[in-house]
Amino acid sequence: MINCVAYREGVKVADIPVEAISDYLQKPEHFVWVALKDASPEELRQMQEEFTLHDLAVEDAVHGDQRPKVERYGSCLFLFMHLVEPGDLAGGDRCVGEVSVFAGPNFVLSVRNRSKSDFLGVRKRTEAEPDLLRHGSVFVLYALMDAVVDRYFPVLDALEEELEKIEDDIFGKGSARENIERLYRLKRRVMVLRRAVAPLIEAMSELQGPRVPALVANVQEYFRDVLDHLARINGSIDSIRETVNTAIQVNLSMTGIEENAVSKRLASWAAIFGVWTALAGVWGMNFEHMPELKLQYGYALALGTMAAACGTLYWRFRRAGWL
Amino acid sequence: MINCVAYREGVKVADIPVEAISDYLQKPEHFVWVALKDASPEELRQMQEEFTLHDLAVEDAVHGDQRPKVERYGSCLFLFMHLVEPGDLAGGDRCVGEVSVFAGPNFVLSVRNRSKSDFLGVRKRTEAEPDLLRHGSVFVLYALMDAVVDRYFPVLDALEEELEKIEDDIFGKGSARENIERLYRLKRRVMVLRRAVAPLIEAMSELQGPRVPALVANVQEYFRDVLDHLARINGSIDSIRETVNTAIQVNLSMTGIEENAVSKRLASWAAIFGVWTALAGVWGMNFEHMPELKLQYGYALALGTMAAACGTLYWRFRRAGWL
Amino acid sequence: MINCVAYREGVKVADIPVEAISDYLQKPEHFVWVALKDASPEELRQMQEEFTLHDLAVEDAVHGDQRPKVERYGSCLFLFMHLVEPGDLAGGDRCVGEVSVFAGPNFVLSVRNRSKSDFLGVRKRTEAEPDLLRHGSVFVLYALMDAVVDRYFPVLDALEEELEKIEDDIFGKGSARENIERLYRLKRRVMVLRRAVAPLIEAMSELQGPRVPALVANVQEYFRDVLDHLARINGSIDSIRETVNTAIQVNLSMTGIEENAVSKRLASWAAIFGVWTALAGVWGMNFEHMPELKLQYGYALALGTMAAACGTLYWRFRRAGWL
Amino acid sequence: MINCVAYREGVKVADIPVEAISDYLQKPEHFVWVALKDASPEELRQMQEEFTLHDLAVEDAVHGDQRPKVERYGSCLFLFMHLVEPGDLAGGDRCVGEVSVFAGPNFVLSVRNRSKSDFLGVRKRTEAEPDLLRHGSVFVLYALMDAVVDRYFPVLDALEEELEKIEDDIFGKGSARENIERLYRLKRRVMVLRRAVAPLIEAMSELQGPRVPALVANVQEYFRDVLDHLARINGSIDSIRETVNTAIQVNLSMTGIEENAVSKRLASWAAIFGVWTALAGVWGMNFEHMPELKLQYGYALALGTMAAACGTLYWRFRRAGWL
Amino acid sequence: MINCVAYREGVKVADIPVEAISDYLQKPEHFVWVALKDASPEELRQMQEEFTLHDLAVEDAVHGDQRPKVERYGSCLFLFMHLVEPGDLAGGDRCVGEVSVFAGPNFVLSVRNRSKSDFLGVRKRTEAEPDLLRHGSVFVLYALMDAVVDRYFPVLDALEEELEKIEDDIFGKGSARENIERLYRLKRRVMVLRRAVAPLIEAMSELQGPRVPALVANVQEYFRDVLDHLARINGSIDSIRETVNTAIQVNLSMTGIEENAVSKRLASWAAIFGVWTALAGVWGMNFEHMPELKLQYGYALALGTMAAACGTLYWRFRRAGWL
Repeated sequence: MINCVAYREGVKVADIPVEAISDYLQKPEHFVWVALKDASPEELRQMQEEFTLHDLAVEDAVHGDQRPKVERYGSCLFLFMHLVEPGDLAGGDRCVGEVSVFAGPNFVLSVRNRSKSDFLGVRKRTEAEPDLLRHGSVFVLYALMDAVVDRYFPVLDALEEELEKIEDDIFGKGSARENIERLYRLKRRVMVLRRAVAPLIEAMSELQGPRVPALVANVQEYFRDVLDHLARINGSIDSIRETVNTAIQVNLSMTGIEENAVSKRLASWAAIFGVWTALAGVWGMNFEHMPELKLQYGYALALGTMAAACGTLYWRFRRAGWL
Repeated sequence: MINCVAYREGVKVADIPVEAISDYLQKPEHFVWVALKDASPEELRQMQEEFTLHDLAVEDAVHGDQRPKVERYGSCLFLFMHLVEPGDLAGGDRCVGEVSVFAGPNFVLSVRNRSKSDFLGVRKRTEAEPDLLRHGSVFVLYALMDAVVDRYFPVLDALEEELEKIEDDIFGKGSARENIERLYRLKRRVMVLRRAVAPLIEAMSELQGPRVPALVANVQEYFRDVLDHLARINGSIDSIRETVNTAIQVNLSMTGIEENAVSKRLASWAAIFGVWTALAGVWGMNFEHMPELKLQYGYALALGTMAAACGTLYWRFRRAGWL
Repeated sequence: MINCVAYREGVKVADIPVEAISDYLQKPEHFVWVALKDASPEELRQMQEEFTLHDLAVEDAVHGDQRPKVERYGSCLFLFMHLVEPGDLAGGDRCVGEVSVFAGPNFVLSVRNRSKSDFLGVRKRTEAEPDLLRHGSVFVLYALMDAVVDRYFPVLDALEEELEKIEDDIFGKGSARENIERLYRLKRRVMVLRRAVAPLIEAMSELQGPRVPALVANVQEYFRDVLDHLARINGSIDSIRETVNTAIQVNLSMTGIEENAVSKRLASWAAIFGVWTALAGVWGMNFEHMPELKLQYGYALALGTMAAACGTLYWRFRRAGWL
Repeated sequence: MINCVAYREGVKVADIPVEAISDYLQKPEHFVWVALKDASPEELRQMQEEFTLHDLAVEDAVHGDQRPKVERYGSCLFLFMHLVEPGDLAGGDRCVGEVSVFAGPNFVLSVRNRSKSDFLGVRKRTEAEPDLLRHGSVFVLYALMDAVVDRYFPVLDALEEELEKIEDDIFGKGSARENIERLYRLKRRVMVLRRAVAPLIEAMSELQGPRVPALVANVQEYFRDVLDHLARINGSIDSIRETVNTAIQVNLSMTGIEENAVSKRLASWAAIFGVWTALAGVWGMNFEHMPELKLQYGYALALGTMAAACGTLYWRFRRAGWL
Repeated sequence: MINCVAYREGVKVADIPVEAISDYLQKPEHFVWVALKDASPEELRQMQEEFTLHDLAVEDAVHGDQRPKVERYGSCLFLFMHLVEPGDLAGGDRCVGEVSVFAGPNFVLSVRNRSKSDFLGVRKRTEAEPDLLRHGSVFVLYALMDAVVDRYFPVLDALEEELEKIEDDIFGKGSARENIERLYRLKRRVMVLRRAVAPLIEAMSELQGPRVPALVANVQEYFRDVLDHLARINGSIDSIRETVNTAIQVNLSMTGIEENAVSKRLASWAAIFGVWTALAGVWGMNFEHMPELKLQYGYALALGTMAAACGTLYWRFRRAGWL
């Protein structure tokens, strides 16, 4: 699926066919925005010729499975990002989409792979702000980046929600086994998001500071805003990770505490039955001279004694909180 | 709620209506301080036009829920801080207020959202020091920042107090379950405060060093003082976090130790009853030739033997500290 | 085993004998690529004279057992890398191969020790791209580096696969002892890979940035690509390490949880037998006046009572999830 | 308590009254050293006027309870340090003294609060080295700093000694509860010392490097020496912290190991008594045809069998290390 | 013990008496190498005068017990290192030797304290390479440093060997208590080595980079080599530390797992004896009408039933892996 549009001074000029790209690239003050979805290596090779992209960058876009990054190739920028959506995380950490963006002074080429959603919305919203789009191709780069990062937020929210649910259960009784498994799965999912976010923060430094590429010099504030969003997500991720670690520790403690409670109950009942059986054993002995055995109410007295001893024990254990 | 005042050489000139702001902005050596509380997006858009603020900064102020930050937009500064108060932390980590401050050479605009307390005190205290207010709008920026940071201290104190209370309990017996839950909750609350403080420290670097904005050049020492307060809070936060982690470990150890004690008591009583019952079992056997059964004082002797055996065991367990 | 080839403008000129090396070194626009395998110290000393290599670098190549590194000696570069292959890790952390590469403006000398695979493939692939090989000896350096780093990926995949297998087992019952041992071994193996990768990332900074050696100035993008691969491997390694740590914690929790379950079953059965034996003990007492002993169906009643008591207990423990 | 002395070329000129300070400040090549102990805010305000100190620095000195710091105010330096003494740590982490030092080209003002010891020794030792004191007020600053830092060493020694004592106990039996409490208290105390040392190391960077204040340019090596002491203390602190963490883990393991031993003994004795009682139960049954009951030595044989069975078990448990 | 030799152009000129040092210091192109062993403060003071060393450096050499460091005093360098030898670590962490080296353009003064081995080997090896010794006094500095660092390797090897031995035991049964103690001791010893290495790496930065002292400018590559060795040792140390931490965790898990196994055996045997005793209790009851008691083979049947019940239980526990 391919989608090419030419812009001039922030306004859409025309939907153009692939063949016309090179014509528009030569027109001054124009830029071309090409969007590919699940592009084949052949399509990418064609684009490489059209825009004279660097071999290594194209290879990254073809292969996918890269760390998020921002790389400068001469006057061009190459951007690689992970597309994470809430549903993705449930199914494991492999099924995450990818976006590659190549941006030069007069073109933007975006390639989306394995993503469920599309970026038509980005094009629409960007075209609705001709004042900003006037900044040229780099603004499209920003808009794409912003769109990808914005989609991390619902993922983060889902993770925080899951953490809160686990927290509610963790101090209750029972389900320790389930809680620990949920915590482990949560941590794994958090790390998928982290792998999308943390390298990007690092890479963004390419787009900040005094030695920034000419391309982004005028819109640096927009990229700072994206960086800020990423930093916020990263902060929350770190916070979740630390909390999960603490929660695993807490779970361990709770298990120990429950074990303690069980041991106490076990000990208490063992003592009670022990006393009962010990007394019964006494009167089950076969000595000839055991006067109480001949008493009229001996049996009742014995049962009473046994019940009283056990009752006393029960009451004391109760009071001590063991039962 | 809106509140506009114009100042000249550190002295209040007049309470002014919103419409008059643009007039005062053009008067030399004046600056305007506008304070909004729970501002609607419309009010903020109006202020944006009045002071020509940057889109992205205004968006941050409108949306809220940002990381604390200090950002430079041309000659203006944008400051975003969390307002944390002791009560807030009890109710979870979402109900934290926010303050946005925009400061330019001739204006300060502060926007407070979801905060219970107000900043009238700041205005009063600032106006009481005309010598300092003479530094201009940037001194107001400092005063607001200082006021927000000062309110972190009682929060920190509350956290440290809670930690000390838990410490008193942690080496006592019982309440392990409660302690662990309190430690967990404490850690969560510490992290809310940390999220308010740590990014601010990072962001403050914008206001330090040789490449500082022109606006703050003369009052850098004041911002260094704020940074110092933040660093102190952050140091205490790190200290609490580490202590909480250690305390959770300690709690785990205490649980294990108590478990040990319970197991020993269980084992001791099991042994004592075991001996008693074993002996009773012997004399409950039905062999024909068991001479002791016929003795006059056989029964008494038997009971005495059993009591002696158990007593000896009891005494030995006592001495070994198992009972 | 030695292997010398001379190149000119990216094209192979001739296989040359060792004696001819110095001749070719003097021809302009030529460079010589010498490959040694399991070189003896003597061979290395000979090469040192041929190419006037630095003492310390040659010593490192002779001794082996170094940290991976990139060092500049005048206009030459010395590169030391670990060769890790999936099979290697199984046998412990000592049997890892090593590659030393010396690169000057007109030569590349590669020395492979204790490696199972060879680099003939690298030579073939490099020669197949004369356009790139035109960059000179430094491109060979890149190609060798790339080949070594590419071989880390299957190692990493094997580690990730092993981790996933352990994860499947960790929440099941039983095999806790085996799981913990597998996790420990996995961590050890991860650290071998890490020792190959992490110092290399650090060292690569020599080949990046504005103060880069003249030699690599034109092919910096290629080394950045290698660095990117290393960073990706390192990210995955960190992720595995953290997951292994969490998994060890989880394993500990699971052990505690299973212990809990066992204790509960033990306590339940102890209670059930305790009740049965206590009741049997009652009717085993030898009092003269125990009217129920004389009943026709006393025995049946007794058995019924005992069974009923135990059944009730069993049912309650079942409901409570203890049995 | 106040104490003013004027110096010229490293030699004491006179003890001077407070009123004379301003006279001496104007004499060339003189400097004044004023020492206050537990100064009232009023005294400090007076000194502020005398030496024209910065508001914020004086406020810090008045309030106390700051992080250790070194701050530059124009040509003056402000130094704030914690005074920690071995005894202090026992009583909690609040009772730590404080020293503020203000140093300008021609004066030094030191303020000691809540400290038990005084600095008369510092003055004496400093005056005894006129060659060094010739460096001027900054040498006094160094001498005070050095004196404070030197007092950290016995504190550190006390902590290390305590750690070693705990280590001796930790692998012994019993006292797990006490050990864990001592470790926790030790860690708390270590963190008090750390709070005194770590921020100071950071702050000392102000006094190092090429952009150092003019005041300290000639005596930089002395401050480097202080920094070196601080770094050594900090290294030891980190080492203690890590060791305490490991020791807490070890304590946990030891508890588990002891629990294991207890469980094994419990199980062994339960088995031995179980066998005994089970056999006695057999011969306590009331079957009519139990031939062994009629044997002359049946009883003895039974007792022998029971003893043999139990003895065998005992011997086996002994050999297995369970008893 | 003192040992003075004068060198000229890399060749030994003469063994000289202490009194002749100052003569040789004035000869151009000569340098003097003085080696002291367990020097008294007086000897050091004498040397200080001879070579005009800085007070603070000499004090460090006299006192000892410093962090390893490299300090620049004017054109001189002061080096302080720990001497660690395998045997040392066994006896605790205090008995570590120390080497101080002072190096100026025309002298090297080395002071060895509390070291068992001497540096005669260093002198011999250095004199054997006049080409290198031609670099002057700084090459001696390098040679001493290299010799000290080379002695860390056998220490490191001993630690790694010990770790591997513990690893072999850790997954076996039993010796948990011993393992944990060995791990703890190992960690302590690792930290002694770390204290010798880590600060030295930091300090070595003084001898690297563009702002290096004039003295070392020509031999920077040699110091880079030493730094590389240190980095390698440090990497291995970090690796050991992490592995020890993991091993302590593993030990804890193994303890829990063994506890689990013990609990299961305990529960199994308790159940088996419980069933036996419960059945024996039934036939020990004194009801009049218990028909099975009168059967000819009642007793045998009862014993058979009991044995069958217990056997069935035994078999099931066996199959479940509890026994």
